[in-house]
Amino acid sequence: MTYRARHLLGIEPLHPVEIATLLDLADTYVDLNRQAVKQSDALKGLTQINMFFEASTRTQASFELAGKRLGADVMNMAMQASSIKKGETLIDTALTLNAMHPDLLVVRHPHSGAVDLLAQKVNCAVLNAGDGRHEHPTQALLDALTIRRAKGRLHRLNIAICGDIAHSRVARSNILLLGKMENRVRLIGPPTLMPSEVRDLGVEVYDDMREGLTGCDVVMMLRLQKERMDGGFIPSEREYYHRYGLDPEKLAFAKDDAIVMHPGPMNRGVEIDGILADDINRSVIQEQVEMGVAVRMAAMDLLARNLAAARQEGAA
Amino acid sequence: MTYRARHLLGIEPLHPVEIATLLDLADTYVDLNRQAVKQSDALKGLTQINMFFEASTRTQASFELAGKRLGADVMNMAMQASSIKKGETLIDTALTLNAMHPDLLVVRHPHSGAVDLLAQKVNCAVLNAGDGRHEHPTQALLDALTIRRAKGRLHRLNIAICGDIAHSRVARSNILLLGKMENRVRLIGPPTLMPSEVRDLGVEVYDDMREGLTGCDVVMMLRLQKERMDGGFIPSEREYYHRYGLDPEKLAFAKDDAIVMHPGPMNRGVEIDGILADDINRSVIQEQVEMGVAVRMAAMDLLARNLAAARQEGAA
Amino acid sequence: MTYRARHLLGIEPLHPVEIATLLDLADTYVDLNRQAVKQSDALKGLTQINMFFEASTRTQASFELAGKRLGADVMNMAMQASSIKKGETLIDTALTLNAMHPDLLVVRHPHSGAVDLLAQKVNCAVLNAGDGRHEHPTQALLDALTIRRAKGRLHRLNIAICGDIAHSRVARSNILLLGKMENRVRLIGPPTLMPSEVRDLGVEVYDDMREGLTGCDVVMMLRLQKERMDGGFIPSEREYYHRYGLDPEKLAFAKDDAIVMHPGPMNRGVEIDGILADDINRSVIQEQVEMGVAVRMAAMDLLARNLAAARQEGAA
Repeated sequence: MTYRARHLLGIEPLHPVEIATLLDLADTYVDLNRQAVKQSDALKGLTQINMFFEASTRTQASFELAGKRLGADVMNMAMQASSIKKGETLIDTALTLNAMHPDLLVVRHPHSGAVDLLAQKVNCAVLNAGDGRHEHPTQALLDALTIRRAKGRLHRLNIAICGDIAHSRVARSNILLLGKMENRVRLIGPPTLMPSEVRDLGVEVYDDMREGLTGCDVVMMLRLQKERMDGGFIPSEREYYHRYGLDPEKLAFAKDDAIVMHPGPMNRGVEIDGILADDINRSVIQEQVEMGVAVRMAAMDLLARNLAAARQEGAA
Repeated sequence: MTYRARHLLGIEPLHPVEIATLLDLADTYVDLNRQAVKQSDALKGLTQINMFFEASTRTQASFELAGKRLGADVMNMAMQASSIKKGETLIDTALTLNAMHPDLLVVRHPHSGAVDLLAQKVNCAVLNAGDGRHEHPTQALLDALTIRRAKGRLHRLNIAICGDIAHSRVARSNILLLGKMENRVRLIGPPTLMPSEVRDLGVEVYDDMREGLTGCDVVMMLRLQKERMDGGFIPSEREYYHRYGLDPEKLAFAKDDAIVMHPGPMNRGVEIDGILADDINRSVIQEQVEMGVAVRMAAMDLLARNLAAARQEGAA
Repeated sequence: MTYRARHLLGIEPLHPVEIATLLDLADTYVDLNRQAVKQSDALKGLTQINMFFEASTRTQASFELAGKRLGADVMNMAMQASSIKKGETLIDTALTLNAMHPDLLVVRHPHSGAVDLLAQKVNCAVLNAGDGRHEHPTQALLDALTIRRAKGRLHRLNIAICGDIAHSRVARSNILLLGKMENRVRLIGPPTLMPSEVRDLGVEVYDDMREGLTGCDVVMMLRLQKERMDGGFIPSEREYYHRYGLDPEKLAFAKDDAIVMHPGPMNRGVEIDGILADDINRSVIQEQVEMGVAVRMAAMDLLARNLAAARQEGAA
């Protein structure tokens, strides 16, 4: 079995073998990107459109570079706030773009489920680049690739995901992926940022960093998403760092060779100690960014192949 | 006779044979865009610059994709409001870009005539992507291609253009093109949105939809351009829809096989019933978008050939 | 000796032979850009990222076209004002981009020295596209190329740089370059816009245009940078034009064949008479823009070659 899906909307529908297939291909693109000439013809003559209804410099850049290195024609659409006021407008925008015959549509949207809805309306492959609090599948895949390369495997690891779980689609996609690959996932964070439904996901929940980190192989910090905390509890940054920020003292409770991760952009001194973030013996934060381009190349390459196969079947 | 012009500034200077030449070439690009690999080398090594002094997600995307699929180096310039305050700045901007040796300049500008003025100052080919209330030639060409493909011909048709005629460069370019091709054009809209000078264009004017639509082959709706109605009459959307919005009941007065068009973006429930807009038995609105990319590919391809020929003559 | 540097951060560290090497290569790119097909494979498979922390339509466009014509994958990053508030953010942004394996990073930043700092953190080649009041090396190089082509040489010329010296990184880079090439540089401007430290740069200082222009071969006007005059002296435009604006009467004091330059965008009627700016017998302002693309192509080409050589040495 290989990767046969038409879209990449989330981790939830993926089979472990599909995840492994994606990561195997991504590994080859890591090698390509480290060469002097970073160019493939895998997407030559195909059209990739990036529709970001939420600004994201780093994720959009990663998808854009991934597409360009594969030879795609890449177009960025700056979707203004005004055009997302009505649900129907999203569909009209999708139908309009669909009529221009794109092959790959990369979509970020502030509403959970918006990308799934859009995918139902178009003929091309859709990649979810983050929708509301729902999923961010390429982030979970790049985290998985980073872990697999650092640890030599992606199963039977103790992995702690720490911080603002409640507002994090990154956490949700990671919990799903790491669970499918048979790892033991622990969530650590203040109870106010820990949604009750996570307990259904087969994870252990802690509100004490030292306790939760004990014996961990991987420590994954999350960004404190103040911009999504409308009206609710907002911790003071100082207090938050004291209790939940990762510093060498807390990290000492994890295994000696535990790696430190963060999806970025970091709030240094809030979620993580700045010196620890830069410590190349522990932190794989830069590797995560590097793996991001490779994972997106692999995902777009596989989806483009599936699309070509589906079109050929449709024509036959 | 083929298409020999240096620029595409409007429909007005075009000969019917030139229009047919453009549409014939566009037909071949419709086929290319429907293939798995959408790539030509027609504009390889040429530079296309999109200068949009008015934001337009859909038209700019269409031109950008058209250029990229033809292999051009495409650059988008975000022209800020501040840089259009003085007429001289437009010229300085044009001269600056001209010195960078572009081959194709695609320009949208809020002032009628600004694109013509700019074309006089540069050595490259200029395409008007909409200037004030003056012209929007590629929109009229894509509408013509859509009609020709749906109806099998582009002459002796009864075509109704409905709605906000006064603020519409789309209407103006379409009236010119459809008249040149010997169709019978009817304009339908409230008298307050019907400029007196249209009667000189050889059209029939109605203010009743049922009467105007009777026996029509093509029903072309226009966007209500509230953003251009400064100080004047602004109809209530509900009243407007009741009297001028296209719904199945009003469409029944047209021919049984009449097609429904809209240049987009649509105000559903204002200019047109949402269900009718999506009815693929009547509506060709998505086809219009598809034809847009093909028509822009054809126009840029022909202008690039004319430019190469002119440069060769100049060098000889 | 050829050009061996890893970055292009300023004119200050360049040897005259390096400057000549850059200009010689740029000459060949002027020729390429004048051809019908403007395409080279010099940067094929390489990634160029433009990071503009200050908006600049013309400089960014020049770098973007230069990269595209050399076959690079070019990505523009719109760096929002918010992301430059903390020094650490600049470094985090640099590290993040660096992890995506760019080859060429083109950076403009409002703070002097920010580009140097960034260059220390990345593995790729960095080009300074203007940092604070410090340097703007590609502007000085394009001015040098323009002068060399107009005058047949780049030494023993009398060159006047006129206007707002105090706020001008263009002036600073030009003073350094023209001095290295053994020209006689005069600065002309109001004492309030003439920083005291310029006298250490081996230049002559005037506050009278007629006196300063007498016998000059080249008259280089500067843009009045009102946006950088926070709280200090702001001259009235009328008074400024009367005393320091270049008009035919003042230009008559220069040599008969003196050329007129301006880095753009011009304030016509403030720094320069509009008719004189357009007089192709005297003004080389459009040539400056043309040379800009060629100089940036040459600089990126040479830096990419140096990068490839350094990587090969590192691998051996």
